[in-house]
Amino acid sequence: MNAGVDVADLARPGGARIVLLVADGLGGYPHPDTGLSELEAAATPNLDALAAEGACGLTVPVAPGITPGSGPGHLALFGYDPVAHQVGRGVMEALGIGLGLAADDAAARGNFCSLDGSGAVVDRRAGRLSDAAGAGLASLLDGMESPAGPVLVRHVRGHRFVAVFPGAGTGAEASDTDPGEAGLAPLPSRPLAGGSDGLAGAVNAFADRAARALAGREAHGVLLRGISAPTRLPSFPDRYRLRPAAIAAYPMYRGLAQMAGMEVLDAGGDFESELAALDRAFAAGGHDFFFLHYKPADAAGEDGDFDAKVAALEELDASIPRVLGLGPDVLVVAGDHATPAVVAGHSWHPVPLVVRSRLTRGDGAPAFSERAFRTGSLGTVSPTSVMTLAMAHAGRLAKFGP
Amino acid sequence: MNAGVDVADLARPGGARIVLLVADGLGGYPHPDTGLSELEAAATPNLDALAAEGACGLTVPVAPGITPGSGPGHLALFGYDPVAHQVGRGVMEALGIGLGLAADDAAARGNFCSLDGSGAVVDRRAGRLSDAAGAGLASLLDGMESPAGPVLVRHVRGHRFVAVFPGAGTGAEASDTDPGEAGLAPLPSRPLAGGSDGLAGAVNAFADRAARALAGREAHGVLLRGISAPTRLPSFPDRYRLRPAAIAAYPMYRGLAQMAGMEVLDAGGDFESELAALDRAFAAGGHDFFFLHYKPADAAGEDGDFDAKVAALEELDASIPRVLGLGPDVLVVAGDHATPAVVAGHSWHPVPLVVRSRLTRGDGAPAFSERAFRTGSLGTVSPTSVMTLAMAHAGRLAKFGP
Repeated sequence: MNAGVDVADLARPGGARIVLLVADGLGGYPHPDTGLSELEAAATPNLDALAAEGACGLTVPVAPGITPGSGPGHLALFGYDPVAHQVGRGVMEALGIGLGLAADDAAARGNFCSLDGSGAVVDRRAGRLSDAAGAGLASLLDGMESPAGPVLVRHVRGHRFVAVFPGAGTGAEASDTDPGEAGLAPLPSRPLAGGSDGLAGAVNAFADRAARALAGREAHGVLLRGISAPTRLPSFPDRYRLRPAAIAAYPMYRGLAQMAGMEVLDAGGDFESELAALDRAFAAGGHDFFFLHYKPADAAGEDGDFDAKVAALEELDASIPRVLGLGPDVLVVAGDHATPAVVAGHSWHPVPLVVRSRLTRGDGAPAFSERAFRTGSLGTVSPTSVMTLAMAHAGRLAKFGP
Repeated sequence: MNAGVDVADLARPGGARIVLLVADGLGGYPHPDTGLSELEAAATPNLDALAAEGACGLTVPVAPGITPGSGPGHLALFGYDPVAHQVGRGVMEALGIGLGLAADDAAARGNFCSLDGSGAVVDRRAGRLSDAAGAGLASLLDGMESPAGPVLVRHVRGHRFVAVFPGAGTGAEASDTDPGEAGLAPLPSRPLAGGSDGLAGAVNAFADRAARALAGREAHGVLLRGISAPTRLPSFPDRYRLRPAAIAAYPMYRGLAQMAGMEVLDAGGDFESELAALDRAFAAGGHDFFFLHYKPADAAGEDGDFDAKVAALEELDASIPRVLGLGPDVLVVAGDHATPAVVAGHSWHPVPLVVRSRLTRGDGAPAFSERAFRTGSLGTVSPTSVMTLAMAHAGRLAKFGP
């Protein structure tokens, strides 16, 4: 990453403090009626002032046309090549419900399914089970023995659950048992990485025993996908010589930050309590990097609700003076990906980026928006450059080469 | 480099002549009082005319947020990936004082230091020796025998010197003896590349003998850093099928050009004499590529002197008609990195780039500046693209693929 430069060789410790405010799904797209994006429609005087004082640009999350999930979107902002460091679906599902995973635990995303007498899948979602029914079946399977020990089973919602195979081995990975369509039988799992024979065996034993335990119930079997141990990430604190704190109300983002080696602070359940946690962390003085996560813009975009996304961006805007009031040496506002209301989901569109420090004086951007930032001084860059830009503006990167 | 295109396959010889004018530290940053960068504050009618007629863009020297030294900055402009081809500190120091190095000579950057009775470093700079004292100690050590033969020692200034280990081997590299902080003993050097055992042994023997020779003097030992032979560069003339000439008053830039295989012309000691050398070289007709180096903008930026940098840019501007008067087919004005006065050092900021040839007609840039070039037709590119752009505008690059 970063054109092969070893940032750890250049990073130097120091007092400068960096806040990386990740507005989830920050980027948007013009509304068909007005030609204005969510950011352009929103009244964001504080973000606009930040643009006026900062260095502006856009990030392309993975590559043009590629829409990232939250995992790659965040890992890229933390400086990890999101293609080289892929997070499994099972791991993301586990993080999303707040399950802690050890480096050698493997997690799988599970579906309860319906099977016919021959063992073929009739419905991959067991008729979209109710939450209550799904929770009951998950409890039934929790703690089931496998050749590798008891399997942890946690309900997510409806027909979805997470299965964790403790001690499967660091780097372990096994193939899906989900055949992907009805009419086919579940597949045997195969090892996909060295040292994964035990994991594949445990997955297959679990699937068999689960099918027997479910006989006569609302679902008849389980389908497992995205079966792997957490991706092994080089240590964020070692690479940047920072003492990082993660402040996120949603478990998945805490889990991603923890995988990177950040200290996860108690952040409560909403952005207001996150801000209180940021206040406390600044006062305590034990950290010099703060990953602060803002979720509502993404949630509104996912719902396809343009006006709700505008409101969420205005709420974000209102928090900026409070963050600046803490006196961070560098404030970065970035997004993990765009979530335009017109797409009603994540998208590939470039995402606004601003870096503000004593070394920035503004690029002449008239507003904080996708359009205004196209000609910003940072240009259009990979999100894997955000950390080096933040470090540079904090005066915490030495010169490369003599 | 160049996304893997083998430029040597596409380069074709011809009569078109290219001048690459590298304005060291060209890029700047807005002054806090005016919001104008050095280039924006300077009166540069000739550079502005060049922008009006040329194709404009910005270069990002290594990667966003990464600040390059002069070595990587120049190698990138010559078309070499600056991460793959790293120049050692010792080699740069040797080039900087005009020491010629053979491909198998290793150079080290040296400090005279103070030691206590136990052999631990008390002061890594020997109380910041005077130039006279440093020069005397360097003379004392010059020619000292090592297992690999006599070591060449040349004073740089104060406590700094260069040690050259002739015949250490092409590609040889050894670890530093400098422990990096006081209170620790000097480290034994270890080989860092194949065939470097002899170099590490010579370094250690030299350090031991130097300490004995320095007994009772103003300094008690030596610390060596950045110990390596010159980086092996593919030949610039072979890659581009050019007959290149390097014109630079400062030894370091002549040395870098020589490493690339350029012919180094006698350029005198300042830019005026460089321009006279360019005149002579054009008249003689033996070359079709001219690397012309302009140093004063960088020096002023390093001093943090905004007004001096403005003046240096205006002096550069005044030289443009003279260069154009020679009738080069392509004139490129580029920088190796930014040196904003507000940073008082090199920085990571993008650097203006203009290419003028009969194939350019201007991008509508209203002036030669960082801001005006953001929307130039060349875009924001790596400096490793400058040579291919220059060759293209000279009509000296064939089509890639059928």
